[in-house]
Amino acid sequence: MRILGIDPGSHVTGWGLVEKGGGGKLIHISSGTIALDEGMELSGRLLLISEGLSSVIRDLKPDAVSVESVFFARNVRSAITLGHARGVALLAAASSGLQVFEYAPRAIKQAVTGYGNAEKEQVNQMIKALLKITEPVKPDAADALAAAICHINHFHPGLHLHEQAVLKRKRASGAAPIKS
Amino acid sequence: MRILGIDPGSHVTGWGLVEKGGGGKLIHISSGTIALDEGMELSGRLLLISEGLSSVIRDLKPDAVSVESVFFARNVRSAITLGHARGVALLAAASSGLQVFEYAPRAIKQAVTGYGNAEKEQVNQMIKALLKITEPVKPDAADALAAAICHINHFHPGLHLHEQAVLKRKRASGAAPIKS
Repeated sequence: MRILGIDPGSHVTGWGLVEKGGGGKLIHISSGTIALDEGMELSGRLLLISEGLSSVIRDLKPDAVSVESVFFARNVRSAITLGHARGVALLAAASSGLQVFEYAPRAIKQAVTGYGNAEKEQVNQMIKALLKITEPVKPDAADALAAAICHINHFHPGLHLHEQAVLKRKRASGAAPIKS
Repeated sequence: MRILGIDPGSHVTGWGLVEKGGGGKLIHISSGTIALDEGMELSGRLLLISEGLSSVIRDLKPDAVSVESVFFARNVRSAITLGHARGVALLAAASSGLQVFEYAPRAIKQAVTGYGNAEKEQVNQMIKALLKITEPVKPDAADALAAAICHINHFHPGLHLHEQAVLKRKRASGAAPIKS
């Protein structure tokens, strides 16, 4: 199972592919960020996010996509701006026929650190430890890898997708196919 | 000049193409809505919005796209959801190499009714009168047509695009290429 985690943002979008190997071993395949110039027009930035993620999906052939759910933003304006990038990321997945799963921020932190209120730095360190990465990992790429690991931990291959969704809703982790 | 107005929404996305003919006459070329089942997954809905708008752009060959700027939403969650659809709409324009202009809601209402606080119904009636449409026009299509007319009224073909932007920022109408 190869899962692409995405952490969308209108200035920096992180992505990371994690494979579940034999014996449940987590393997870091690749990760990175799409960082865009603040001076660029929004529609041009969205195009680069779309092209970047589509190219990652084409090259790395994930089985599904995992993203963090968002219910919080500084204000309505920043929520809409984040929504722009997030919509384009979800579209890149859907255009490639990939199902998208979303997980609450707490569930993602819990999956990688065992603690739902972990700090960003703890998540980063645990990502490096879990995936045996020795180089520095950019924060947005680390968040994307964390989303991928969270999906791998929550996914039960024996169940039908609908049952997965029911199971995930029953846990208070917030994981379910996106319907908002 | 052919302008495609878009009124993006995660359930209903309106679109409408207006051409400026000889003597500044406004001509209604085509308009409609992309209405999606509430039960559908978000990423699937975004895919249909993207495909729908891309097909409209391919068929009707607009010169530019006009959308309403958004700074208001019921709450952060609905702002993010709206942002998803809006991001996908802006991407459809950018993918086709079209520049996107955005206008404040007041400027759009002013452009079609002469009154920045006009009600939705007044906008609908004025759209029908200005474009000589005898059939009923769905509210989201009417809003899209209003955005297109607003851009036609604000656009000065003699000026370079950058100068247009400066001019528009100077007016308090909120019109400018999107950079948020």
